[in-house]
Amino acid sequence: MSEGKERQRTTVSIYGQQYTVVGEDEPEHVQNVARAVDQKMREIKSINPYLDTTRLAVLTAINVMDDQLKQQALTEKERLEKDED
Amino acid sequence: MSEGKERQRTTVSIYGQQYTVVGEDEPEHVQNVARAVDQKMREIKSINPYLDTTRLAVLTAINVMDDQLKQQALTEKERLEKDED
Repeated sequence: MSEGKERQRTTVSIYGQQYTVVGEDEPEHVQNVARAVDQKMREIKSINPYLDTTRLAVLTAINVMDDQLKQQALTEKERLEKDED
Repeated sequence: MSEGKERQRTTVSIYGQQYTVVGEDEPEHVQNVARAVDQKMREIKSINPYLDTTRLAVLTAINVMDDQLKQQALTEKERLEKDED
């Protein structure tokens, strides 16, 4: 999938810190990802105001991974159900 | 989806730190999620050995969110293609 695509550097701001993401994704996609992570961190912080930034970031990663694994399981279930038709 | 389910506390270890996750998920699912996050953090650390833990955790969250948004777009594309049949 990577033929002809160039590696781009995109600088994003998450929770007040700058991060440079290097990869083949469009800067717009990288900005969307960063915005979603920033929003999720702020959501979790509002529920757990005493978390330090490292624990907040790890809990954000847990949260997103949880969503992803559940969505994968659901997509797989839908595929199996479709195959039964 | 939450009827009759009890909130459970599951303690997991990620990157050498303990986290207690409270929710309705089975402890086995929470452990799988934690293992996936821990693995992703170690992967990113091996590529970027000088990252401090906070930045490592944020980059892990970015990485997982990126996977999730791409997977969502792919699933949506597949649904639209199925509808065209």
